[in-house]
Amino acid sequence: MGVKNYTESKIREGNFFEDFYPGMVLVHATPRTITSGDQALYTAFYGSRFAFSSSDEFARSLGFARAPIDDFLAFHIVFGKTVADISLNAVANLGYAEGIFGVPLYPGDTVSTVSDVIGVKENSNGRTGVVYVRSTGRNQNGEMVLQYVRWVMVRKRDVNTPAPEVVIPELSTGVVVTSLSIPCELNLTEYDYALSGSAYRWGDYSVGERIAHVDGMTIEEAEHQMATRLYQNTAKVHFNQHTEAEGRFGRRLIYGGHIISLARALSFNGMENGFKVAAINGGTHVAPTFAGDTIYAWSEVLEKIELSGRDDVGALRVRLVAAKNNNCESFPLKNSEGRYDEDIVLDFDYTILMPK
Amino acid sequence: MGVKNYTESKIREGNFFEDFYPGMVLVHATPRTITSGDQALYTAFYGSRFAFSSSDEFARSLGFARAPIDDFLAFHIVFGKTVADISLNAVANLGYAEGIFGVPLYPGDTVSTVSDVIGVKENSNGRTGVVYVRSTGRNQNGEMVLQYVRWVMVRKRDVNTPAPEVVIPELSTGVVVTSLSIPCELNLTEYDYALSGSAYRWGDYSVGERIAHVDGMTIEEAEHQMATRLYQNTAKVHFNQHTEAEGRFGRRLIYGGHIISLARALSFNGMENGFKVAAINGGTHVAPTFAGDTIYAWSEVLEKIELSGRDDVGALRVRLVAAKNNNCESFPLKNSEGRYDEDIVLDFDYTILMPK
Amino acid sequence: MGVKNYTESKIREGNFFEDFYPGMVLVHATPRTITSGDQALYTAFYGSRFAFSSSDEFARSLGFARAPIDDFLAFHIVFGKTVADISLNAVANLGYAEGIFGVPLYPGDTVSTVSDVIGVKENSNGRTGVVYVRSTGRNQNGEMVLQYVRWVMVRKRDVNTPAPEVVIPELSTGVVVTSLSIPCELNLTEYDYALSGSAYRWGDYSVGERIAHVDGMTIEEAEHQMATRLYQNTAKVHFNQHTEAEGRFGRRLIYGGHIISLARALSFNGMENGFKVAAINGGTHVAPTFAGDTIYAWSEVLEKIELSGRDDVGALRVRLVAAKNNNCESFPLKNSEGRYDEDIVLDFDYTILMPK
Repeated sequence: MGVKNYTESKIREGNFFEDFYPGMVLVHATPRTITSGDQALYTAFYGSRFAFSSSDEFARSLGFARAPIDDFLAFHIVFGKTVADISLNAVANLGYAEGIFGVPLYPGDTVSTVSDVIGVKENSNGRTGVVYVRSTGRNQNGEMVLQYVRWVMVRKRDVNTPAPEVVIPELSTGVVVTSLSIPCELNLTEYDYALSGSAYRWGDYSVGERIAHVDGMTIEEAEHQMATRLYQNTAKVHFNQHTEAEGRFGRRLIYGGHIISLARALSFNGMENGFKVAAINGGTHVAPTFAGDTIYAWSEVLEKIELSGRDDVGALRVRLVAAKNNNCESFPLKNSEGRYDEDIVLDFDYTILMPK
Repeated sequence: MGVKNYTESKIREGNFFEDFYPGMVLVHATPRTITSGDQALYTAFYGSRFAFSSSDEFARSLGFARAPIDDFLAFHIVFGKTVADISLNAVANLGYAEGIFGVPLYPGDTVSTVSDVIGVKENSNGRTGVVYVRSTGRNQNGEMVLQYVRWVMVRKRDVNTPAPEVVIPELSTGVVVTSLSIPCELNLTEYDYALSGSAYRWGDYSVGERIAHVDGMTIEEAEHQMATRLYQNTAKVHFNQHTEAEGRFGRRLIYGGHIISLARALSFNGMENGFKVAAINGGTHVAPTFAGDTIYAWSEVLEKIELSGRDDVGALRVRLVAAKNNNCESFPLKNSEGRYDEDIVLDFDYTILMPK
Repeated sequence: MGVKNYTESKIREGNFFEDFYPGMVLVHATPRTITSGDQALYTAFYGSRFAFSSSDEFARSLGFARAPIDDFLAFHIVFGKTVADISLNAVANLGYAEGIFGVPLYPGDTVSTVSDVIGVKENSNGRTGVVYVRSTGRNQNGEMVLQYVRWVMVRKRDVNTPAPEVVIPELSTGVVVTSLSIPCELNLTEYDYALSGSAYRWGDYSVGERIAHVDGMTIEEAEHQMATRLYQNTAKVHFNQHTEAEGRFGRRLIYGGHIISLARALSFNGMENGFKVAAINGGTHVAPTFAGDTIYAWSEVLEKIELSGRDDVGALRVRLVAAKNNNCESFPLKNSEGRYDEDIVLDFDYTILMPK
């Protein structure tokens, strides 16, 4: 057709299922220097109050040069770069595993992300397939900031392409304790429990303990759009009401990571001393959220982890559940048939550090 | 009830009236390092145009190391920390007095807040009481950044608790001139009236003069939520539409400090050289505001204050009134019976510095 | 009238047509120190992904000290200062010409703007006139950051004022190649095409080539208000729903520069290596936009420009067209009578630098 004469090849329309193969390495575009401006916006989006990432002085009292960037801001920046190459044609973001945080990220550091394709499996419908990638964010010195596996369901460009050989990676279903990266500068001698907001330490939590975090946060369209653009995440569904009006939900979807950050910020009330995220063991975005939804969260302590050689700090493996328009006082999760309740939006499994 | 098994003690539900007593000292959580990112957001929220907090070069020309953080941004950060301990169970924020700004706050400084309870008085209904606190924000060197008194009406946890002895502090109803903290580095020899936006100086204003500030600003839900979270203010009424829909107004309330900042920014047009806030003498949040309201403001010069030993700078005590959906050309305030007009939302009394 | 006793002279109501004369120099108020906070907000507003302004490391690899502020953020800051003096009483912003970017702007730099009136022409209706100004933004060292001409239609204060002598400046309709300011530090030897997001260079584009940029971005009220306030642009129509409800459109108008920035960010997909804006040759805000509109963009290569003495970098003169609620796949522009299609909002002519 004459009028549609643009050079289609110059437009990046993202990879389709058949473009991925195990062993493929994707160097993602747009390195990003993180600044205190990003951290200020992060605080404005979620209201996070963990003293460690709010105060340079508090971080210094723990042996750090200054307050590192919030862990999930680091996650979003690392993740955002992968979207254009991995999930632009995704139907669903299926899960996370083996997420490990490495060196802290400070304002002024520059992050780049590289992903390794570690598995592919075509779905029986022949129209989509699952792609497994391990993504690694590094700072300007090449040090690992964050590494995690995610798997996504991606559309095929051409349903007639034959299915590739199935490769499914073996993934840990828990956190490998020895791989937990405890920042070597960490020193909790001076930890101030008045400034952190709570006197409860690692020893005060027990396996199976559940905490409903009380507060709720209503999401506005402008907030999640600004957040998701800040992360340079380019997934179209978050920004374009003109096309989404015709889509499955009739409206823009909220980036799932926005919910993780909201839930983490809400979890402050009851887990104030879980100052640092050490690992992402797993996670599922159970259902989509939309502007106007109010997010609540609850946590369950899954495991208490002793860290070898450290008697001042321990780790808690925590299930963090977010629900919409349900205050979580009854710890909603699944019904008797094992299906998630309809207001559950996130079922997340992560590990946090806490003073002993 | 079996299902509600969370450790209630780990959740901070805030203090109730009977928890407060004169002499009580509250060390508030979450120290906060202020950055140029916070200042950028502040400009984005209110559009402030005072050259002194907009330009490092302008501030240097006045003897400062660089542009200090906007005074009311400092106020909001200091104030925000107090909410979780003082006003989480507040019915109303009743008033301010004896507010004094100390050393300027610069990007990179870290602020902490401590409050002293200086009065309590149970209300005759036996369900609520008034708590008076003096809150002091300090920087990382322990220098006073801001100190002010506020009193709030707080719910009792248990209406059967006996009333405490009444203690009502004696509070100044005006600004104590000698306590005005004039930054010692201040030098107005190079003050540039083209860059500041107006040639009107201290001598050009007269007591009783009133200025309607012409411009209006409509508030969006996303804006006040982001601002209030940036200040790490945790009052639930600002963020949770799911519960507020069932509340008194059916919607989220806007943090009163958001209105102070909007009014201050609007006051630029007509008081461009009131470059620095020196004191908060009093103030009342007369009525709530909601997203969609358009805020206007007018000012009245209450007093002209000579500063001892300074012939280059004087102070103006100013009444700053904000109204919603009323352009303030007729200086709305109170009716003949002394009741505030229904569109008045703020009646504020503060002191600003101006070149002579 | 007794009640309206404010000192009208203290309120800046902006200049009217008869206040302008050729040769008039306007020193605009409120110098502004740009920070990494401003850049973070800019990214949050538009999602820009050009590596050059996203990564200090990428910028260093090109010979710069760090990542400069995004070019259009510089434009908006320089422009914003002019509004209070030039276009507060404007009916329409008619066009741009002869825009040249000078030295890059870095976080920490302070920008001031001065405008020279270079033409006036009263309209035949006797109620309005066109004012031509050349505005120059400079950094704290007096170096030119950006210079451009714009012309606006401004209301007369008094229709009985006689028309001034007509002065219409001669303006270039194209970019003067020799005036293109190529940063002297620029060195493209290390340019990384994986990190920039595309392998297409200057030589891969041809005159007449058109690219539809695929993505669309829906604008929220809170976003454009925050952006426009960040630029300290004081045009009332962007912020005051209370008065705009009674106005021509019944709603707030979006600052035209917001559309330029959105279109530029959207143009990344297909022109990833157009890393730096060198000139604004012309531009028209064809129609207003409102919150809820979804902006799309397409580009046409108008001219390929060799830069003398440089075999590593070339310039492309590009037409950048933005449309609302039209995905631009059919390159919408004008109908057979030469009138713009009704969904076109911006027709912009600018020059970008690209590695050869």
